[in-house]
Amino acid sequence: MFTATAITLIPEAWPGPLGASIIGRARAEGLWALETVDLRGFGLGKHRKVDDTPAGGGAGLVIRPDVAAAALDSVPRDGRPRIYLSPRGPRFDQNMARDWAAGPGVVLFCGRFEGLDERVIEARGLQEVSLGDFVLAGGDVAAMAMLEAAVRLLPGVAGNSASLTGESFETGLLEHPQFTLPRVWEDRPTPEVLLSGDHKRIEEWRLSRSKALTFDRRPDLYAAYSETPTPTAPETGDEPD
Amino acid sequence: MFTATAITLIPEAWPGPLGASIIGRARAEGLWALETVDLRGFGLGKHRKVDDTPAGGGAGLVIRPDVAAAALDSVPRDGRPRIYLSPRGPRFDQNMARDWAAGPGVVLFCGRFEGLDERVIEARGLQEVSLGDFVLAGGDVAAMAMLEAAVRLLPGVAGNSASLTGESFETGLLEHPQFTLPRVWEDRPTPEVLLSGDHKRIEEWRLSRSKALTFDRRPDLYAAYSETPTPTAPETGDEPD
Repeated sequence: MFTATAITLIPEAWPGPLGASIIGRARAEGLWALETVDLRGFGLGKHRKVDDTPAGGGAGLVIRPDVAAAALDSVPRDGRPRIYLSPRGPRFDQNMARDWAAGPGVVLFCGRFEGLDERVIEARGLQEVSLGDFVLAGGDVAAMAMLEAAVRLLPGVAGNSASLTGESFETGLLEHPQFTLPRVWEDRPTPEVLLSGDHKRIEEWRLSRSKALTFDRRPDLYAAYSETPTPTAPETGDEPD
Repeated sequence: MFTATAITLIPEAWPGPLGASIIGRARAEGLWALETVDLRGFGLGKHRKVDDTPAGGGAGLVIRPDVAAAALDSVPRDGRPRIYLSPRGPRFDQNMARDWAAGPGVVLFCGRFEGLDERVIEARGLQEVSLGDFVLAGGDVAAMAMLEAAVRLLPGVAGNSASLTGESFETGLLEHPQFTLPRVWEDRPTPEVLLSGDHKRIEEWRLSRSKALTFDRRPDLYAAYSETPTPTAPETGDEPD
C-alpha cells in the first residue's frame, strides 16, 4: 500500500485537507496510509532544540543536521524516495505525481525556518522537490499538495478512472471548457454542439478548444504537445477569432 | 487588513496548515483574516445539489454556474481579485504572492469534481490561477499554499523582514546552502569561509553558490537573472569544478 511519512514540526496541521473529500475517504478505506513523525521529538536537551543560527551569520534559524538525520533514520525507507520540500528543487509536476503513485510511497521532510543544513541533504541523499517558484513558511502545505496529486491517481481513489483521462496534463493539453445545467444561464447558452448528441463532433470541438486554450495560455506546453519548435495556431473550431 | 475568503465544498478542511506556525499565529494576532463560505449552502433543493453531469457527456460532475454565482455574489469584493484555482491558469509565483500581499486580500473559489461551468468564470471575471502543472482533487490545498506564500510577506508576519531578503526568488536566484551547528557532523565540516568572520568573503561565497546552484538547476531563472539570452557559467568560488 502507498505509504506517506511526513517528518514535520507541525504534526497538528496534518492531515489537513488530506483528511477531506476523496483523499480522506481513500485513507479511511485503507487505499493509502499517512504517518507523521514529530521532528521536535528528536530535538536536543530539555527544550528539544532542533535548530540554530546560520553559520556565517544572517537572519533566521537553520535545522540541525544531527536532529534531521535522527528523524530520517527512524523512518523505515521500504524503497521509498526521501523528499525535501524546497524551492531549490525541480518543480513538481504530473509526471512526478504518476511516478510517486506507481511506487511504494514517499518520505517527506518538511522544513521550516531558514532551511535545513546542507550536509544532511547530501549525506542522506534527500531529493529536493519544489512546489513552484514561490516561498512558503514551511514544507507542509507543499507536501500535502504533492500527496493529493499522487494519491488521487492510485487505483480506486478517484472512483472512475475515466475521469482521469482527458484532464489537464494527461493529454499534454489543458482541459477544454466544461458546461452543465442550466442550458441557458444569465442569457449565456450552452454551446450547441454539446447538446447535439453527435459524439464525434463533441470530441472534435473539445480537442480544438483544448488546443486553442493551450496555445493561448501555455505556448510551452503547446510546443511540447505538437513536437514542433515553433507552434502554429490551431484550428479554433466553430467560433471566429 | 488582508482578508481571504475561500468558497469551498470542504470548509472542515480549513484552516488546515494555515492554522499552524507563523501563519496561524499571525491570524490569531489579527494580522490577516480568513473566512470560509460553504458552497453547499447555495446548493439547490433539499439535497443542496451543486453540480450536474457535463454537457456533451463525459465522466464526473461539473459545478453549476448558478450555484457558483450565488456563492460568489454573497461575498463582498472590497476590491479583491476573484481567483479560480485551476490548472488551466498561469502558474502562481513569488510575484503574484507579492501582488496579493500588497492588496486588500483575495476571494478564492475552490473547485472540485470535473471543474466549474465556463460561463460563470467569464460572467464573474474569475482569474484562473494554477499551483503548477499537476492535477489536484480540488482547489483547497492550492488556495492554502498560495495564501501561505502571500501572508508570510505581510508586515509583522515573518517576524524579521531580514529573513525575507536573500531567499529564493527574491533575488532572482535560488538560495545558497545553509549550515548550522555542529561544526563537524559525520566527518562533514562546515565550510571554512562561513566560520571566518569575514563578512565580505561570506557574502561573496553565498552569492557565488546561489549563482552556481541556479545555473545548474534552473537555467531559465539564471538566464532571466543575468539578462543574457545565453548564460555563461558563473564563478563557483573556492572549490574546483
